Amino acid sequence: MTSHTKRNEDFGEWFRNVLVEAGILDYRYPIKGCGVWLPYGFQIRRMLTNLLRDLHDKFGHEEVRFPIMVTEPNLRKEASHIKDFENEVFWVTHGGRKPLQIRYALRPTSETAMYPMFKLWVRSHADLPIKMYQIGSVFRYETKTTRPIIRVREVTTFKEAHTCHATLEEAEKQISEAIQIYKQFFDACGVPYLISRRPDWDKFPGSLYSVAFDVLMPDGRTMQSGTIHNLGKNFSTVFDIKYEASDGEHENVYQTCYGISERGIGAELSVHGDDNGIVLIPNLAPTQVIVIPIPDKKIMPLILDTVERVVKNLTDSGFRVKIDKREELTPGSKFFFWELRGIPIRIEIGPRDVKKNQAIVVRRDTFEKKACTLAHLPQVVHQTVDEMSANMRMKAWGWMKSRVFRVDSLEKARTILAKKGGVVEAFWCGTEECGHNLEQINAKLLGVPIDVGETLEGKCASCGKEASSLVRLAIAY
Amino acid sequence: MTSHTKRNEDFGEWFRNVLVEAGILDYRYPIKGCGVWLPYGFQIRRMLTNLLRDLHDKFGHEEVRFPIMVTEPNLRKEASHIKDFENEVFWVTHGGRKPLQIRYALRPTSETAMYPMFKLWVRSHADLPIKMYQIGSVFRYETKTTRPIIRVREVTTFKEAHTCHATLEEAEKQISEAIQIYKQFFDACGVPYLISRRPDWDKFPGSLYSVAFDVLMPDGRTMQSGTIHNLGKNFSTVFDIKYEASDGEHENVYQTCYGISERGIGAELSVHGDDNGIVLIPNLAPTQVIVIPIPDKKIMPLILDTVERVVKNLTDSGFRVKIDKREELTPGSKFFFWELRGIPIRIEIGPRDVKKNQAIVVRRDTFEKKACTLAHLPQVVHQTVDEMSANMRMKAWGWMKSRVFRVDSLEKARTILAKKGGVVEAFWCGTEECGHNLEQINAKLLGVPIDVGETLEGKCASCGKEASSLVRLAIAY
Repeated sequence: MTSHTKRNEDFGEWFRNVLVEAGILDYRYPIKGCGVWLPYGFQIRRMLTNLLRDLHDKFGHEEVRFPIMVTEPNLRKEASHIKDFENEVFWVTHGGRKPLQIRYALRPTSETAMYPMFKLWVRSHADLPIKMYQIGSVFRYETKTTRPIIRVREVTTFKEAHTCHATLEEAEKQISEAIQIYKQFFDACGVPYLISRRPDWDKFPGSLYSVAFDVLMPDGRTMQSGTIHNLGKNFSTVFDIKYEASDGEHENVYQTCYGISERGIGAELSVHGDDNGIVLIPNLAPTQVIVIPIPDKKIMPLILDTVERVVKNLTDSGFRVKIDKREELTPGSKFFFWELRGIPIRIEIGPRDVKKNQAIVVRRDTFEKKACTLAHLPQVVHQTVDEMSANMRMKAWGWMKSRVFRVDSLEKARTILAKKGGVVEAFWCGTEECGHNLEQINAKLLGVPIDVGETLEGKCASCGKEASSLVRLAIAY
Repeated sequence: MTSHTKRNEDFGEWFRNVLVEAGILDYRYPIKGCGVWLPYGFQIRRMLTNLLRDLHDKFGHEEVRFPIMVTEPNLRKEASHIKDFENEVFWVTHGGRKPLQIRYALRPTSETAMYPMFKLWVRSHADLPIKMYQIGSVFRYETKTTRPIIRVREVTTFKEAHTCHATLEEAEKQISEAIQIYKQFFDACGVPYLISRRPDWDKFPGSLYSVAFDVLMPDGRTMQSGTIHNLGKNFSTVFDIKYEASDGEHENVYQTCYGISERGIGAELSVHGDDNGIVLIPNLAPTQVIVIPIPDKKIMPLILDTVERVVKNLTDSGFRVKIDKREELTPGSKFFFWELRGIPIRIEIGPRDVKKNQAIVVRRDTFEKKACTLAHLPQVVHQTVDEMSANMRMKAWGWMKSRVFRVDSLEKARTILAKKGGVVEAFWCGTEECGHNLEQINAKLLGVPIDVGETLEGKCASCGKEASSLVRLAIAY
């Protein structure tokens, strides 16, 4: 990177710089909290949205597209929902020179856009379940400090899924399915996560309960990167979504919804990045292999010919390959350019390699170099890609796990979080009073782990009474 | 179709009905001019947006994504631009409970969102050309009657490309390239078009001139379905987009932009549809072949087994195939269901076919049926798909061409358009006065053909003086 900011010294600065320098996102747009996805960033975004599409399609969801504007009366229908969003909604009040008769909100999320239509679509048991998703923009008039990708006013890449079911059991099963989908998403990204059930005072407005995926960022703070909500009948009651059950009664449906935004992309870039730029996990890299000819005046045509053959060979083997033939740049500046952009594999071919009928293969994560005969190149690249993916996952999970601390007192929790960030797990009696008390250490209560297998017993870190569960605390974005 | 509206008797009604009945778009959303893309409609939309992506990528464009909101000062920078859009802009005036310091427009098109960023990105000749595109929503507070897909307030599927060049010659070459791209797009859709240079009083606000693709709809009216604009230096001057030329001087860039909206999808559905529903050209059908088992109690397992083998065989041959096994529906109602949705090829397999080791292949456009041995099925489906595509193109072009009339008097033009619609071509001296006079026959002047090869001479249909060119007139959407 040109800016020489070290990722682990000033993560915020590193992140802002890498977005611009790697051609991912330009945040100088004249409206606060709005950025422009640049061509390379858009390609990365396309890889991740396609992954989300594939996963949702595989689990039987259908993609749809709802309007961006919502009428004010619909936004106001569910009382706790509007209460939470009221201070964050952008309002459209005029069409042309005239005031509108009713105001339109730019959707902050799409329950209130979708559910009046669900009411029209659900008639009988045969119409259930509904499992739909869309990927698009939602808008939040954020009052906290905005940050590119992480806290924005136009969330450009919000995947939200919405489902309707006949019974609460089916809705619960859907919650489990959603957790599976999100696990598979983050696993494909090689991004480690903690899954917690948010406390009641922090659940999605209008839901019965919320489950969240939190990602630990390099600066030791957690970032909420995916949420899953069981809505019960709250919305279906106010939006009057009913089906005729087999006994002829009209019953409100049970609903769930779950969302992942471009924070998923932000997590991928942050967790794997290093001081040289971003590092893309091979399956999600728009370009997986960059081939760079090392020039030599005497045998340049031979070198270029070898490069072309290598590109063809690797492309035929199923890799996404590019070649960098720019004559005005030195090999070193090309290395720098592609390292910054996180291309997993670099292949160098110079005069010595041509003579030896070989190429040099370099891994982006470890910068490990090895020579490889041209005949074995596809096989070696396959192997290197596999090793690199496994290493990136292992390293990221190892790093996170080493920063999850189980503590038995609030004081220890406070000291740990203040010193190095991370996540602390303490025992909790489950009362709201003790929950808020735990948060007094300047941390956010992420909630009760639902990804901890062991059965544990202990005393509440706040009141000392018998605890009902562990609870996670962290400094959160 | 359930509604039994004939496409050629009441096209507007047919179109509205087919959108709902075929599961394409639900227009009952509570905001006027806003519709919901339903799962099947979304699949069709995905095929067409992917086609647009492939074409723009092939011609060296890069996909990006700009914010939806534009500041009022930026929207107002180019005087003729805001003049034309002022009455059609949705304004965001409040964030949460507070009025915003400056108003934000929902972009009616993205010149004024993109060009302040182009100013930052263009420095030297090496940064040119810029060729970028995005696919997303734009908003128009339409005062004319709205119609689903054809005239809407949220245009959900606006592909807009924007380019910057060092010279006017390169901008002109870009206009030719854009025409090529749009020809390839509509040709892939099998949709016939007329290309005309719009008169000066109807060009895009802020451009030097505009070229438009018009599609003749079944009701005899034309629909503007793609536009291409040479912006000259108008926008680069007000947005101060400059590059350093080789002589060290800072020069404003030349710009072009071109757009296609969901009207492209509307054209595809309208032009090929018939009284039974839509008809999709095979290369753009999300499902190309639907296989329907004809039940027979005695040998049902054998029938289903044959069906599965056929599906596998055709899938392996590269077709997008589905099977309709629903037990609660009769074969007849399944035929109806898939005809409505325009699936190009239907394959029926019943007891007699199983015995004869054959299947029945039915074409959606002509309903032509033929028996085919299972061994030859992939080959026959390939051939049928080719014949069907060629026939759809030929029929559509023939239909349009038979409705383009060359006339030598205004009276004839008026009579023809009033009776059957279509397009008239008359001679025109090129003056604005005569242009407006020609429009007195209740038609819109589409402009001067740029797709007519012959050199023609004649007298202006308005003033009788020597004409400079032909001009097209039609009743337009």
